[in-house]
Amino acid sequence: MNDTQNSPLRGVRALDVCLTPALLPLFDVADYIVVIIDIFRATSSICYGIENGAEAIIPVSEVEECAAYREKGLNYLLAAERNGEVVAGFDFGNSPFAYTPEKVGGKTVVLTTTNGTHALHLSRGARQVVIGSFLNLTALCNWLKIQNDNVLLVCAGWKNNFNLEDTLFAGAVIEQLKSLDYKQDDAALAANDLYQLGRHDIAGYLKKTSHGERLKKLGIEEDITFCLQVDLTTAIPVLAGEKLVKL
Amino acid sequence: MNDTQNSPLRGVRALDVCLTPALLPLFDVADYIVVIIDIFRATSSICYGIENGAEAIIPVSEVEECAAYREKGLNYLLAAERNGEVVAGFDFGNSPFAYTPEKVGGKTVVLTTTNGTHALHLSRGARQVVIGSFLNLTALCNWLKIQNDNVLLVCAGWKNNFNLEDTLFAGAVIEQLKSLDYKQDDAALAANDLYQLGRHDIAGYLKKTSHGERLKKLGIEEDITFCLQVDLTTAIPVLAGEKLVKL
Repeated sequence: MNDTQNSPLRGVRALDVCLTPALLPLFDVADYIVVIIDIFRATSSICYGIENGAEAIIPVSEVEECAAYREKGLNYLLAAERNGEVVAGFDFGNSPFAYTPEKVGGKTVVLTTTNGTHALHLSRGARQVVIGSFLNLTALCNWLKIQNDNVLLVCAGWKNNFNLEDTLFAGAVIEQLKSLDYKQDDAALAANDLYQLGRHDIAGYLKKTSHGERLKKLGIEEDITFCLQVDLTTAIPVLAGEKLVKL
Repeated sequence: MNDTQNSPLRGVRALDVCLTPALLPLFDVADYIVVIIDIFRATSSICYGIENGAEAIIPVSEVEECAAYREKGLNYLLAAERNGEVVAGFDFGNSPFAYTPEKVGGKTVVLTTTNGTHALHLSRGARQVVIGSFLNLTALCNWLKIQNDNVLLVCAGWKNNFNLEDTLFAGAVIEQLKSLDYKQDDAALAANDLYQLGRHDIAGYLKKTSHGERLKKLGIEEDITFCLQVDLTTAIPVLAGEKLVKL
């Protein structure tokens, strides 16, 4: 650890927020349980897929990386999307609606996701890496509460930029944890305050954002509504090697 | 400019916030007027000093760099502080109270400031680099309004970390500009929302922050109160080469 990195004080649990993956070098992830957050749509689809019986989900950055799994056997489902369309030759895109028990049960899904994969790769050295979304919010928080450990909420953002939807979710996690004895950094305080503003109508609150507009143009408004459902699932995906599996 | 950088759309002015200097590479600063923000205390002291007749203020990173100006003549005042104390042999520290007309009138002040200098250096390629603080808030905003240009509000943060005081000030600037036709990024929306929460008692709002606690320990509460005064000054410091001078 170098002296510009944040490391929790001894004896006090830290509850910190990394607002974009570009800020991850400021944190010594080895001191934390890391929660990866990419609400639209990677971590929502991952939570739904693991809940619905996917054996594992492997996040990769590039469509080519994903395609390479085709040769490894029929047990792999390949998910790749560009500009809101399923790439030709792939099984499905990034919509959570594709991750049904019928489709993913017993299968390993290889998922192409730029922002989420980037955040995951940078977090590898953490004590544990788990996946969060509104879908598994309370299950995730209940698990975090009993770990007696430092928590770093990593917002995947969009191309390393800050975004509101991931930050608002970080604020929702803090809302459930803050009554416990955690020390919060300024980003955690801000995320929770933003959540207070948006919590009663998260979809409405997010409508003003750039990303919301971008996703709307892609015609995936139903996905957005789906991803903002709270506590639809209870599974907590956890990173084991290269794969995300059920905790 | 590479494809991961933000660049404003043609025909629409951008009003963007860079939450920490670590995120500056995401912006093509050549497209913006940049406002540097380091509320506690560098940009507040700079605004006050320029208002009070300092000929120029030169921000440097290291105490040694500052000390080197001693040999250049008696017209330089050297400001350096470590752990809340004026460094031996220097004229004063970073407290804005030192930047009175009697002390700084007609002089060039060499100011040691880590976060502010870092942000300034990274912003050199901007169309213009100006200095903002609560002290010159409205004067700064009135000037920005008539530039008909993109604005990037750069929060100096603390060792590249996000902090609430700089973000809240960014939100205060947005509050004055947002009725004009600007396109705001998510960080600008968040900063303005946080400002709405804190605006009626900024000092109270900031008490919960880590930096506030840190500064309190340094015994500079009077400086904090001073730095949160709105519209005490009207001068806008602007970067000209290595120096900050009155616009």
